[in-house]
Amino acid sequence: MAAQTETKNQSFILTGVKEIVYEDRPIPELKDPYGVLLQVNFTGICGSDIHYWQHGRIGEYVVNDPMVLGHESSGTVLETGSSVKTLKKGDRVAMEPGIPCRRCIRCKEGHYNLCLDMQFAATPPYDGTLAKYYTLPEDLCYKLPEHVTLEEGALLEPLAVAVHVTRQSNIKHGDSVVVFGAGPVGILCAAVAKSLGASKIVSVDINPERLEFVKKFAAPITSTYISQKISAPENAANIIKENELGEGADVAIDASGAEPSIQAAIHVLRRGGSYVQGGMGRDECTFPIMAACTKELTIRGSFRYSQGDYQTALNLVSTGAVKVKDVISRTVKFEEALQAFEDIRDGKGIKVLIGGPQ
Amino acid sequence: MAAQTETKNQSFILTGVKEIVYEDRPIPELKDPYGVLLQVNFTGICGSDIHYWQHGRIGEYVVNDPMVLGHESSGTVLETGSSVKTLKKGDRVAMEPGIPCRRCIRCKEGHYNLCLDMQFAATPPYDGTLAKYYTLPEDLCYKLPEHVTLEEGALLEPLAVAVHVTRQSNIKHGDSVVVFGAGPVGILCAAVAKSLGASKIVSVDINPERLEFVKKFAAPITSTYISQKISAPENAANIIKENELGEGADVAIDASGAEPSIQAAIHVLRRGGSYVQGGMGRDECTFPIMAACTKELTIRGSFRYSQGDYQTALNLVSTGAVKVKDVISRTVKFEEALQAFEDIRDGKGIKVLIGGPQ
Amino acid sequence: MAAQTETKNQSFILTGVKEIVYEDRPIPELKDPYGVLLQVNFTGICGSDIHYWQHGRIGEYVVNDPMVLGHESSGTVLETGSSVKTLKKGDRVAMEPGIPCRRCIRCKEGHYNLCLDMQFAATPPYDGTLAKYYTLPEDLCYKLPEHVTLEEGALLEPLAVAVHVTRQSNIKHGDSVVVFGAGPVGILCAAVAKSLGASKIVSVDINPERLEFVKKFAAPITSTYISQKISAPENAANIIKENELGEGADVAIDASGAEPSIQAAIHVLRRGGSYVQGGMGRDECTFPIMAACTKELTIRGSFRYSQGDYQTALNLVSTGAVKVKDVISRTVKFEEALQAFEDIRDGKGIKVLIGGPQ
Amino acid sequence: MAAQTETKNQSFILTGVKEIVYEDRPIPELKDPYGVLLQVNFTGICGSDIHYWQHGRIGEYVVNDPMVLGHESSGTVLETGSSVKTLKKGDRVAMEPGIPCRRCIRCKEGHYNLCLDMQFAATPPYDGTLAKYYTLPEDLCYKLPEHVTLEEGALLEPLAVAVHVTRQSNIKHGDSVVVFGAGPVGILCAAVAKSLGASKIVSVDINPERLEFVKKFAAPITSTYISQKISAPENAANIIKENELGEGADVAIDASGAEPSIQAAIHVLRRGGSYVQGGMGRDECTFPIMAACTKELTIRGSFRYSQGDYQTALNLVSTGAVKVKDVISRTVKFEEALQAFEDIRDGKGIKVLIGGPQ
Repeated sequence: MAAQTETKNQSFILTGVKEIVYEDRPIPELKDPYGVLLQVNFTGICGSDIHYWQHGRIGEYVVNDPMVLGHESSGTVLETGSSVKTLKKGDRVAMEPGIPCRRCIRCKEGHYNLCLDMQFAATPPYDGTLAKYYTLPEDLCYKLPEHVTLEEGALLEPLAVAVHVTRQSNIKHGDSVVVFGAGPVGILCAAVAKSLGASKIVSVDINPERLEFVKKFAAPITSTYISQKISAPENAANIIKENELGEGADVAIDASGAEPSIQAAIHVLRRGGSYVQGGMGRDECTFPIMAACTKELTIRGSFRYSQGDYQTALNLVSTGAVKVKDVISRTVKFEEALQAFEDIRDGKGIKVLIGGPQ
Repeated sequence: MAAQTETKNQSFILTGVKEIVYEDRPIPELKDPYGVLLQVNFTGICGSDIHYWQHGRIGEYVVNDPMVLGHESSGTVLETGSSVKTLKKGDRVAMEPGIPCRRCIRCKEGHYNLCLDMQFAATPPYDGTLAKYYTLPEDLCYKLPEHVTLEEGALLEPLAVAVHVTRQSNIKHGDSVVVFGAGPVGILCAAVAKSLGASKIVSVDINPERLEFVKKFAAPITSTYISQKISAPENAANIIKENELGEGADVAIDASGAEPSIQAAIHVLRRGGSYVQGGMGRDECTFPIMAACTKELTIRGSFRYSQGDYQTALNLVSTGAVKVKDVISRTVKFEEALQAFEDIRDGKGIKVLIGGPQ
Repeated sequence: MAAQTETKNQSFILTGVKEIVYEDRPIPELKDPYGVLLQVNFTGICGSDIHYWQHGRIGEYVVNDPMVLGHESSGTVLETGSSVKTLKKGDRVAMEPGIPCRRCIRCKEGHYNLCLDMQFAATPPYDGTLAKYYTLPEDLCYKLPEHVTLEEGALLEPLAVAVHVTRQSNIKHGDSVVVFGAGPVGILCAAVAKSLGASKIVSVDINPERLEFVKKFAAPITSTYISQKISAPENAANIIKENELGEGADVAIDASGAEPSIQAAIHVLRRGGSYVQGGMGRDECTFPIMAACTKELTIRGSFRYSQGDYQTALNLVSTGAVKVKDVISRTVKFEEALQAFEDIRDGKGIKVLIGGPQ
Repeated sequence: MAAQTETKNQSFILTGVKEIVYEDRPIPELKDPYGVLLQVNFTGICGSDIHYWQHGRIGEYVVNDPMVLGHESSGTVLETGSSVKTLKKGDRVAMEPGIPCRRCIRCKEGHYNLCLDMQFAATPPYDGTLAKYYTLPEDLCYKLPEHVTLEEGALLEPLAVAVHVTRQSNIKHGDSVVVFGAGPVGILCAAVAKSLGASKIVSVDINPERLEFVKKFAAPITSTYISQKISAPENAANIIKENELGEGADVAIDASGAEPSIQAAIHVLRRGGSYVQGGMGRDECTFPIMAACTKELTIRGSFRYSQGDYQTALNLVSTGAVKVKDVISRTVKFEEALQAFEDIRDGKGIKVLIGGPQ
């Protein structure tokens, strides 16, 4: 650490419900020979950050001790462990923020996102990335090509979420896809579906501005449907089918977590179609289970991301297939992070980035 | 038809809600060169037969005109079309009772059970098999080996349903499986799961006698759990996990259609586990959608059967892997069919067979 | 047929090895209620047409009787059977030229290309499409959108072959792909792989002009490797790996049928990679079987096309993803067909189209 | 290590081609907190042990330094690392002998057998298990139930190889399977295929005694075919098809590595069938590539074992599905290991076990 003159690790810390403090913490030590020490450059705000801040918990995950927020980050390598081979000081990287145990059955069978002993940034009790310094294993750092910016690097996280959702949906070339919800993940799902060869995408939301955005973002194959708080989901599904899809959609993705969307999604599918639950909402909902049964749908959950998703996200950005920088509404300084949290809480903008402490 | 002295086609016909008549209909003509004319020997009663009889409809399928009931049948070949190569007069066969269009996308991609133009026995407007004569294409008739009886042949239908359910569940050797519902299909699902190498099966029902039956039927790896109208499905799931399964089941199958079972099934699964909706019940239910999402479950419907299922069912019976005759509670004459329907409606016995008219 | 003034069905017929005649045959009758009578508009020449012409056989398929050649065609609907719903007189269609039996196990499990009783155009004893009139079932005719030309329609056939090859290869977004052979199918495979999200494509051939073509056709991710009759396939593989691929390719496709290409393809793959044999060549070759074993490769054959491939091909052309018209070297009149055959035999041009008789 | 009075680690070491020495080595230190120190109880001899002994190399793996042989072992826990939770001193375990890096793409996508940095016992430069003491991570030790012996535990290794081969073959219930080679792995493949519901197994070998063994071992569905050094593999395939299989086998497995077997296996398959290369032989062979292409076979290599295979092997032994102890020809003392190697080299017996040093 000799090269660093700075010895304080400024951090943005949740200390209780709606209670945030800035605090200087010790700089993390680099103990893992496969690890790297990073200076964090940009961090996006995720709905889960907002939820922990407002409610102090998500489901069974409770913030009992002060916890650094943030997990959508890019950074610059400061120091490398003795076994690190592919990274060196100065490399700019996207940071995959969950460290799996690598030993449990889920890890070893190729689903490390389902690891029973995952250490995930800003999921209690593990600190997040809204700090000056952070350590990660080498294999969770994705070196950015020169033409990809650190801002884009931070956005690989929500893009990897969208990649995983679409991977769970098993979209095939030529499929028709309906995406419910036009928040950051829904928007990105539409763009990823397009890049996988979807022949038609219908984006459904209650917010016309977001629909306007996604229509351009995943042009030219994307049309939209404004769901006025969908009073009758099956009717909405029928309208979408009649106007756009014939027998029904090959794939439906929920990126909203809202009950009417989930119901409409099941009804909008063709026989043998595929549904993915990507959005988080209430624990239970009223679900058209018999339609799922007799149409022999395949329904999958999607949780974070797994092997290959971050790399695919990087490919999509690197090749220009997904212009992820268009979803950045604005970028603020680390000192203004709280203001950014308030904006996102209030629905202002799609994605706000926070710069790292300088 | 010269060889037949009988010219009447006695049939068991549903004419309205709770209204049944016996009637002589014309003997069906054999027009399809790939078709065979069969004399029906035995027919099992299915829950759907009971439902049409009691309610005159199942979902969107409404009995508007008189309809012959029955679709779980075995028969004997009387006559063969000019292009038939693998069957001859006198052959004893299990009858797969749904004729797909063979031309739609679903048929051509290998899911003829999802055919948009299916002609399925005893699903309006198509007549069923509770008659003396019936015609089917050659490829839907499965020749029984000498040591398999015609009674067993009739039971291939519910067994094929169970085979399809387990196929949708993607059971792998060594998996733990929880089956909700110990009616005919649930019982057969347990036996098929065992034959596919399940390491442990838990059968859940509210009826202790049925559980006693399935415990023997799928011995020695099957244990049971009595669900006293499961007041708290998540608790029931936790009890089953603690007692039997550790992290959770690899596979859960609902063969009950009951909401508490469906809920318990989702909670009893491990991360990445697989669920199949095999039972029919109310159109909607309260569903733990977030558990499905964060555990990344794969949830599939199961509808009837598709290519290979009848053949697999025949293999299971032929090799003795599933002793399907044990589920026959009793066999009645064609003239007593109505009494058999009443027994099944009243929950007496597991499976009742009706002999064909002589 | 009242509307037709023409009553002769001019046909281009192979009567023996290297023996071709033009002959007027009877106009085919439309017996199948699901069938359509077509006037053929354009037909491409395939390597198999050339092979039958030059050798009178391909493997076990022997031309014993005069046979009309051609199977890459587009046409216009003249008449429809009584059960046809989606097509009408005047519709322009791409013609899928193989009629499966729809009844065998392969058909019913979703692999009609493996049908045991397939009637495939210009595969003995079935006549091909180089004639004025042809009949096909409705579901094998793909209606062309207005902006897709009949010339492009004829090219859906080789494109569907390429779609099927890539589908067998299980290419995933971001995969690296090496395609051996830059004939029509190899060129189209590269373009399809690109449209499926391949991150890098290496095209290998001995012909620098063809490589130049494919480099533009599947730009900008395609590079090329000239294989000087690859004397040492493993070395060639190593050079490609070092220059382009690191650990090895995710996917390798042989569209050449040449032994050195097949060998190099196996060696160029990473552990767990996927190989598809798309090219036709000699029955046997020296094969690096232990490399396939210890790298746990997945190797698949690819034969014609199956459900969905023609539709995907149409999507690719319709959306502009594959500019299939660029592979047309020239178009000749029906009367000049023999000259076109000679050109293709002599390696002149990529794809030559023959107009239908007027 | 205080509890141990013994301080020498007797080892069976290959020092050069056909040169073996017994030597006392230092007892391995338990550094990994997730590791366990084991006393080795039984070790089977594998063909690869024999090959290293006779030739000093297998392909690119060369024995440059003295190396302990053996990798098919069971052992007893002597000491556990600080993070070990599921094992304690005295536990009897089967030992999975390859330690993956857990960090590379292959590991993280669920194929740790393809790990680029694997440390595999008795593959140079890593020492094997023919020693008194050995260390392994906890998750690679499979605790044996009381009724499973340590001898059986050692045999889980070849059984896991067979489990992996059959898993690569994607055998489905009711499939017909032809296994070429009736050595230990071929015999075990037949038994595993049976336990997965194969309806028919044909075992092919040149040794009638081995065929006699497998016929009983995988009774009653197994028949045999003596291949007199198969002069014409395609003819052999046709004879097997005519006698046993009709259209052809669903699955063919090569567990011999012999060229005629590989050729016959490809020819014996039905269209769309599945082949696995499990046996090791010469690097290249003459291969019927066009049959593989036009039948659209799926061909996979099989290399060692991956997540789940050892557990499945344990299930098969524990439930009695595979009576693995029947393949033990005899058991010798550690001091007699060389004699056992000579017996196996000379083809005496199926599997010989060597006891651990006392």
